[in-house]
Amino acid sequence: MTDQQDTASFEQLRTRLSRNHFANWMGLELASAAPGTVEIVAPWREEFISNPDRRYVHGGILATLIDTAGSFAVATRLGRPAQTIDMRVDFHKAATEGRLRVEGAIVKMGRTLATCDARVFDESGALVASGRGVFLVSSA
Amino acid sequence: MTDQQDTASFEQLRTRLSRNHFANWMGLELASAAPGTVEIVAPWREEFISNPDRRYVHGGILATLIDTAGSFAVATRLGRPAQTIDMRVDFHKAATEGRLRVEGAIVKMGRTLATCDARVFDESGALVASGRGVFLVSSA
Amino acid sequence: MTDQQDTASFEQLRTRLSRNHFANWMGLELASAAPGTVEIVAPWREEFISNPDRRYVHGGILATLIDTAGSFAVATRLGRPAQTIDMRVDFHKAATEGRLRVEGAIVKMGRTLATCDARVFDESGALVASGRGVFLVSSA
Amino acid sequence: MTDQQDTASFEQLRTRLSRNHFANWMGLELASAAPGTVEIVAPWREEFISNPDRRYVHGGILATLIDTAGSFAVATRLGRPAQTIDMRVDFHKAATEGRLRVEGAIVKMGRTLATCDARVFDESGALVASGRGVFLVSSA
Repeated sequence: MTDQQDTASFEQLRTRLSRNHFANWMGLELASAAPGTVEIVAPWREEFISNPDRRYVHGGILATLIDTAGSFAVATRLGRPAQTIDMRVDFHKAATEGRLRVEGAIVKMGRTLATCDARVFDESGALVASGRGVFLVSSA
Repeated sequence: MTDQQDTASFEQLRTRLSRNHFANWMGLELASAAPGTVEIVAPWREEFISNPDRRYVHGGILATLIDTAGSFAVATRLGRPAQTIDMRVDFHKAATEGRLRVEGAIVKMGRTLATCDARVFDESGALVASGRGVFLVSSA
Repeated sequence: MTDQQDTASFEQLRTRLSRNHFANWMGLELASAAPGTVEIVAPWREEFISNPDRRYVHGGILATLIDTAGSFAVATRLGRPAQTIDMRVDFHKAATEGRLRVEGAIVKMGRTLATCDARVFDESGALVASGRGVFLVSSA
Repeated sequence: MTDQQDTASFEQLRTRLSRNHFANWMGLELASAAPGTVEIVAPWREEFISNPDRRYVHGGILATLIDTAGSFAVATRLGRPAQTIDMRVDFHKAATEGRLRVEGAIVKMGRTLATCDARVFDESGALVASGRGVFLVSSA
């Protein structure tokens, strides 16, 4: 039963992600989901580039991955993505052309708020960015 | 002379912004620049939407505006956009369809690092997000 | 009437601050308060020092000032200090011996959450740290 | 040889921590250290209290633990504590009377900057706060 619920939930989350216009434009795909964690991948797009000479990925693309991974990590427990209150992103290494992968995990799930960590890896597996988001689970 | 330099610098910054693939995809335009501050506008795109039912702008779009405004505020003093080390974004109010405008300002310009604040406003002038970035001016 | 309420509220906030053990140990004094803003001062203590050779103030002392200023800025509108959800602190310049002063201001006051900015100045008026806190106004 | 170096380094770090006035006032003790990670404990002090009715620990005390754990995690690799550039602190649960313990770990060690995560636990082992700091390893 639990397995069926998880499978159903995985499809629901995939559908949710595909209905999100910006996630859809980025080509985001839910690769895996378990209670409290998700993994999302992004194929390459030339529009991700910030500096055209060095072909670095824009920080906003990496921030979007962190925001999305956190919101969907909450969704694994809440049944729907949660609204982001605030986020922090640390850029560790310039990301260049190639598929990006982000892992999101709940750090703390409360009644009002949830806190999630996320880490973004480039195609070689190097950590390129990481961060944290706080999400509204239920408002007053 | 100073005026000419500022004008030149404004054109240089505009060119820089237009060469940035992701900024270009978003349609970002440098509206004004002065030493330590910039104003950038983004016309509407359907792809900015996160939640398709409520038509809210994706947090990643707002984060991109804050990152870009900070980086270009540094550029007004450094002559080039600076690499972002980390950023914080606070989402104050859901942004819906319409032009977005972001103001960026240097809080502290050091030899190694610069700190900038940025605020994003919707078409009605309401503050929808604000944040801060730390940028690398010169590395060891 | 409004003036009397403000005066009463100022005394209430002063009393609140003095009852806070850690604020009391630090010697924090509410210097001014208006709807949405506060100013708090901290006299010098040798225990504030982090690096004993350079006599720099500990980052935790500066973080405490930012947290307290944000919480009391919320209190000017809420009637009581609010619980901090998260905070960011940027250290701009090493603070050395002397009185510290922090200004706190509400950026956004919502029904569930409030966001505040705070800036810490040393005795010479130099900005030594600044930051932001998100506070819980009312939980679900 | 490596063991001896580690032992020496552990003693050096302990001495460093005890010379820090504020860490010393808080009673901080280095409990363990390995390359890239540290564990620090804080015995109880009545002055840690923020809200005297509920006897909650002040956020500034928890922020100090996170800052110190990050700085000393860097010290395990750098040989000395590093200057904090900025930090983020998330408060997950009110901490009440009892010993506090913080774990710090390097996320990314670069030539110019280091990023560290830290988590604070109360006496029952519950996660009460967590956060991240960016530290200056070498300036331009």
